Amino acid sequence: MKLYDSRRAPNPRRVRWFMAEKGITDIEVIDVDLFKGEHRAADYLAKTGAPNVPALEMDDGTTITESLAICRYLESLYPEPNLFGRDPKETAIIEMWTRRAEMLIGTPLMMAVRHSHPALAALETQVPEVAQTNRQGAERALKLFDRRLAESPFIAADRLTIADIVAAISIDFARMAKFKIPDEMTHVRRWYDAMMARPAAGAGV
Amino acid sequence: MKLYDSRRAPNPRRVRWFMAEKGITDIEVIDVDLFKGEHRAADYLAKTGAPNVPALEMDDGTTITESLAICRYLESLYPEPNLFGRDPKETAIIEMWTRRAEMLIGTPLMMAVRHSHPALAALETQVPEVAQTNRQGAERALKLFDRRLAESPFIAADRLTIADIVAAISIDFARMAKFKIPDEMTHVRRWYDAMMARPAAGAGV
Repeated sequence: MKLYDSRRAPNPRRVRWFMAEKGITDIEVIDVDLFKGEHRAADYLAKTGAPNVPALEMDDGTTITESLAICRYLESLYPEPNLFGRDPKETAIIEMWTRRAEMLIGTPLMMAVRHSHPALAALETQVPEVAQTNRQGAERALKLFDRRLAESPFIAADRLTIADIVAAISIDFARMAKFKIPDEMTHVRRWYDAMMARPAAGAGV
Repeated sequence: MKLYDSRRAPNPRRVRWFMAEKGITDIEVIDVDLFKGEHRAADYLAKTGAPNVPALEMDDGTTITESLAICRYLESLYPEPNLFGRDPKETAIIEMWTRRAEMLIGTPLMMAVRHSHPALAALETQVPEVAQTNRQGAERALKLFDRRLAESPFIAADRLTIADIVAAISIDFARMAKFKIPDEMTHVRRWYDAMMARPAAGAGV
């Protein structure tokens, strides 16, 4: 199998972190240079169908994009440690928290970065109010996670899951927009520091 | 089990449509009136942890939100017809297309509705440019789906899957923003008309 990766974007990092937690080392990793437009090259699009990284090329040539689809597929081949759930109920709870992390934190923080970071000004018309509104939205949403983390060591279970990886990467990425975890969110802070101290946090960063 | 539902929002419709395709009739459906703020009532929040519909209360009292987490959980209990994939590879392809449907079509069309429909003006400051940009983004993304549907009867497989349900509901909902499938997208049109003709399309609408 081959993983098409980019060090510059947050979504590919989910897969790298996920693979590092599982100790997966037998997948070839190929860097796609987004600034050179390699994700829009004809041979790349012929494989993936869309100009996105990450992408996973299976041994039969089937290629999928979408970081979470890739991670779930890899979990079927490398089941331990389990990161998506051991039974339908746990899987549902983990998927719920993963989606909350993506939609309530990840998407707003991504918008805050895109609408505020000077290096991304070439990609779209930046609107300061959009950056500000999204940053505030993520801060509000973090309260839900702070309450959760007051009673649980990790977001979705009593062990690390994909939900933690998604949330931690979003917050780390948002440093590009000068985002900081609000001081009063002590449980998020404790969890985030523990996440960033994991060896897998540094995978390919 | 109990499903907390709302007729007014598109995400709960995913679960209703999904249940109708599977012929699930033994789950109690409870309407949550969003305009009365019932999703913010203390007893609702105590169950769900967040002011969201839909929510599924399991027989042991565990309650989950997030329409796709709910649907995947229901698939484990009501496996046929299969809508999430029969093996890891198919599951990955279906998840990839479901996420593309959500993020490339669903989210932009939702933003277009929120920033243009008079009935939603009370919920946020509407910016006409945001509505327009998002509508155009969804139209561009639909080209990817038109190419896919030129070679496949359904979006993710040769049969109906959750990806079709998610995409069709987004497009139908976007009629609130006067969104129309562009005339040249004949494959999307054929697929959409077929989707809307399914009996399950009318579940609770």
